[in-house]
Amino acid sequence: MRVGFVGLGRMGLPMARNLARAGHEVAAYNRTRSRAEALAEAGGRAADTPAAAADGAEVVVTMLADDAAVEAVTLGEDGILGALRPGAVHLGMSTVGVALSRRLAEAHRRAGQGYVAAPVFGRPEAAEGAKLWVVAAGAPEAVDRCEPVFDAVGQGMFRVGEEPEKASVVKLAGNFMLAGMIEALGEAMALGRKHGVEAPKLLEVLTSTLFNLPVYRNYGGMIAEGRFEPAGFALRLGLKDVRLVLDAADEAAVPMPLASLAHDHFLSGVARGWGELDWAGMGRVIAENAGLEP
Amino acid sequence: MRVGFVGLGRMGLPMARNLARAGHEVAAYNRTRSRAEALAEAGGRAADTPAAAADGAEVVVTMLADDAAVEAVTLGEDGILGALRPGAVHLGMSTVGVALSRRLAEAHRRAGQGYVAAPVFGRPEAAEGAKLWVVAAGAPEAVDRCEPVFDAVGQGMFRVGEEPEKASVVKLAGNFMLAGMIEALGEAMALGRKHGVEAPKLLEVLTSTLFNLPVYRNYGGMIAEGRFEPAGFALRLGLKDVRLVLDAADEAAVPMPLASLAHDHFLSGVARGWGELDWAGMGRVIAENAGLEP
Amino acid sequence: MRVGFVGLGRMGLPMARNLARAGHEVAAYNRTRSRAEALAEAGGRAADTPAAAADGAEVVVTMLADDAAVEAVTLGEDGILGALRPGAVHLGMSTVGVALSRRLAEAHRRAGQGYVAAPVFGRPEAAEGAKLWVVAAGAPEAVDRCEPVFDAVGQGMFRVGEEPEKASVVKLAGNFMLAGMIEALGEAMALGRKHGVEAPKLLEVLTSTLFNLPVYRNYGGMIAEGRFEPAGFALRLGLKDVRLVLDAADEAAVPMPLASLAHDHFLSGVARGWGELDWAGMGRVIAENAGLEP
Amino acid sequence: MRVGFVGLGRMGLPMARNLARAGHEVAAYNRTRSRAEALAEAGGRAADTPAAAADGAEVVVTMLADDAAVEAVTLGEDGILGALRPGAVHLGMSTVGVALSRRLAEAHRRAGQGYVAAPVFGRPEAAEGAKLWVVAAGAPEAVDRCEPVFDAVGQGMFRVGEEPEKASVVKLAGNFMLAGMIEALGEAMALGRKHGVEAPKLLEVLTSTLFNLPVYRNYGGMIAEGRFEPAGFALRLGLKDVRLVLDAADEAAVPMPLASLAHDHFLSGVARGWGELDWAGMGRVIAENAGLEP
Repeated sequence: MRVGFVGLGRMGLPMARNLARAGHEVAAYNRTRSRAEALAEAGGRAADTPAAAADGAEVVVTMLADDAAVEAVTLGEDGILGALRPGAVHLGMSTVGVALSRRLAEAHRRAGQGYVAAPVFGRPEAAEGAKLWVVAAGAPEAVDRCEPVFDAVGQGMFRVGEEPEKASVVKLAGNFMLAGMIEALGEAMALGRKHGVEAPKLLEVLTSTLFNLPVYRNYGGMIAEGRFEPAGFALRLGLKDVRLVLDAADEAAVPMPLASLAHDHFLSGVARGWGELDWAGMGRVIAENAGLEP
Repeated sequence: MRVGFVGLGRMGLPMARNLARAGHEVAAYNRTRSRAEALAEAGGRAADTPAAAADGAEVVVTMLADDAAVEAVTLGEDGILGALRPGAVHLGMSTVGVALSRRLAEAHRRAGQGYVAAPVFGRPEAAEGAKLWVVAAGAPEAVDRCEPVFDAVGQGMFRVGEEPEKASVVKLAGNFMLAGMIEALGEAMALGRKHGVEAPKLLEVLTSTLFNLPVYRNYGGMIAEGRFEPAGFALRLGLKDVRLVLDAADEAAVPMPLASLAHDHFLSGVARGWGELDWAGMGRVIAENAGLEP
Repeated sequence: MRVGFVGLGRMGLPMARNLARAGHEVAAYNRTRSRAEALAEAGGRAADTPAAAADGAEVVVTMLADDAAVEAVTLGEDGILGALRPGAVHLGMSTVGVALSRRLAEAHRRAGQGYVAAPVFGRPEAAEGAKLWVVAAGAPEAVDRCEPVFDAVGQGMFRVGEEPEKASVVKLAGNFMLAGMIEALGEAMALGRKHGVEAPKLLEVLTSTLFNLPVYRNYGGMIAEGRFEPAGFALRLGLKDVRLVLDAADEAAVPMPLASLAHDHFLSGVARGWGELDWAGMGRVIAENAGLEP
Repeated sequence: MRVGFVGLGRMGLPMARNLARAGHEVAAYNRTRSRAEALAEAGGRAADTPAAAADGAEVVVTMLADDAAVEAVTLGEDGILGALRPGAVHLGMSTVGVALSRRLAEAHRRAGQGYVAAPVFGRPEAAEGAKLWVVAAGAPEAVDRCEPVFDAVGQGMFRVGEEPEKASVVKLAGNFMLAGMIEALGEAMALGRKHGVEAPKLLEVLTSTLFNLPVYRNYGGMIAEGRFEPAGFALRLGLKDVRLVLDAADEAAVPMPLASLAHDHFLSGVARGWGELDWAGMGRVIAENAGLEP
């Protein structure tokens, strides 16, 4: 299949590479062109603009850092919207806000194009190993059309509705749950430490019993060791995602006090200069608030 | 081994039965005597008072609903403290506060007796199946002495320190983590529902991917279905445990805003008359606050 | 002075009338034209568009409900920006967000026009009586130019800086303080009621001693009596303002947990269908959360 | 009138002195006897024990730092309960918890004595000037009996019910409102500072308009200047009072999220070593959380 790909960051590059390796004809655009050229060894080729990546594609994937970037490559100059042929599909795999999902769906609908939102769960290593989890929403036939992409990058796919924004809601809900988990781990370990229970010991008990799960071990381990670099997912990006959660909550009139709490702790992390730490660095905010040394 | 057992509730009775079946000589006291007699078929015998249960025992286990009950059977009239022989051990397996753990340890120390705190993770079914997880703290030789009990009721044991209160801290931290998880699930599902994502669908995605864990499926399922009866663990008991968490946090000067939030939601549940629902009923509080029908 | 006026709502109409009565030549635009005509008796005249109101004016005042409205009349078709003569001043008296204040300042600067932000404290009755408090920020000479307007509508004026957004910050801080006061009153009265202390009695004590202030008596009285209609300031507008506060906090990396809390309570009010009640209706949310009847 | 007085701290000593100056016969007990002797110049005399202060008194006043102290002087050895004659009244003017008020009322009732709770609003300077506000609850005739005391120490008195605990509820509600005000001031000034609005300027606007009240100027001024010493009321005492508020809320099933928030901020202040600063030092916690220098 002819696939366009826009955004070759830490997630996008391995995904595009897996697409090329699976035999798809991939034309990829990245702001920094060298990363697009890195795709060549896997059989892909660099495109000069988002429009060039979309031109002639059946599906064009976007995988970018934030709403503004997705909006720019889609609706901006030399963007996807103007180049995608009728009937082809824009497959948005970035984590974006609910409102933007809705706007993009509407813009593509008017242009006779399809729009599918399909954000993913998984870190860069999962992207490398084609082990992402995909959460897709859109018109059924458009989602069907994207199946070869999902097969090439993921280990499983969930359809959560016909309106693309629903996939954004599910993805944001998942990220919110992770933020809530980090908050809980941070508070539990601060409590333990101040009562003389070593954080690694507490974590061992928790993750050997009720919370026997990689995400608990991963984030819990960072907090227990106070090691937040290198960042798997930066705290300032965690803040951005919680903002999107709160925006979605606000729109639908859903009080989410835990999201507000996580927001305030991430924001405090940024205020203390820790925006580039891993988002588990929220645990450092919580520890300092308890008078603990990092 | 000669074991005393005080408190034959939904957790205590199966635990005492497993002790008797493992060949220990069990003398058990319960306020409602009929439950103590129910132990007979497994080979145990009923005792008339906590003191009678403790008399002659190497280890006397307490497994009761709250701090007041543990205090009464230990320090009250016909209590354990006055009857336990020097060198024998009081093994407190209830979830109690940090301050009470400390007081009991001190009282037994003065009486030349041992005190081990060893609260457990697991529901009544796990108690039936001898699949509890035990978190123990106390003087090493006293903990050693209790090993036969741990073998008979649990699937694994963790030693978390020499001061009994540390086991209480770990247990409370675990229950706090569960309360935080329920809070997160409740908010996520309210967000989903108001954006048109069915709660069971959202839960399926979450628990098939990042949160593939029985506790998420169990509590998430209750919230998704709005089914909070029969209660596995009553909301008013969840409130009690979060109070103990906040007391421990207060004593050690650890701000725990998520614990405060869970406290306020449990309290609102009690205020709405839902104290006897399962503590996952916190999800109903969150849903109503978002204007959703139960 | 020749003054344009855009926005003749519950606040704007009496302000424009006071300007006309003070001898200024007022041309006013309102979406619903009849309100502009109502100005005639005081000596003003109706303008057909924001541009027409601005045309020839030394100062054009905007007094509108939200950011979108201010943006539309300023930057939209037939807007102020295109019609205001160089050197004249746009005097924004609405409560708007920090980001919009900054954008408007920049747009007018480029057009060789002045921009002063001067939101006001006071309810419609204070606007009638020319008793508003004005908080102004902008280039000193531009603020000077607006003094006749301030004299005609207010009882006092504060200069808080040269960047217009600073006036927005101060106004939002004030509204946040009011929201925090309502939250505190709501919780205090719920506590009192459930302990058998009648709300009016509690309020009498508080407002006769430490909190002897009209705003406490006003909002406290509404909560004590459970009377939230007619709304002096609607709950959904309170929500909007707290959103602006949180946006400003987010931009500057300032955790504001009390603002988050007020946001969640206002949002719950909207979710329960109380968006048109007075914003003191937050007290009803708090009371219901405590299991109290309205 | 023959008056006993127990507790000659920063509040108690000037109150007892005013009683003596008003012509009452005052016998006062204080743990540090020198303060009791300081009363001599005003005409009072020192008592060796609480019992001695109560012996022969019509009314015995307690004015102490916390629940434990009040409990000790009343129910402990050489305490008030054993020495007060039938029909005489214990007038508790300390800020104590609701549960203790109820217990003391019951204990005195059984002993045929009266108990009136009458905590006060006001700082040490108000105590010096006999300008306290008194909030009294108890049996009407017992409250009547205490009127001469109220006249000697206060500028006004409110009766809030026949159960003494109601006065404790009202007093705690007032202190909670102050804590909420400090929280609001702290957040507002942190917001202002990070947007370039000087805290004194912001405070001037707020206290000249909507919040024209001594408590706002007082606490706001401390926060604006970052000057929290000497403490008028120590942060650790603020924490204690918020704990009593939360206990009362817990007992009556009233979620008080603002009280929880204030609790967490005071607790963080104690964790950072600021327990002896004025409780307005909560503003420093808020500022540090926003990355601001003190």
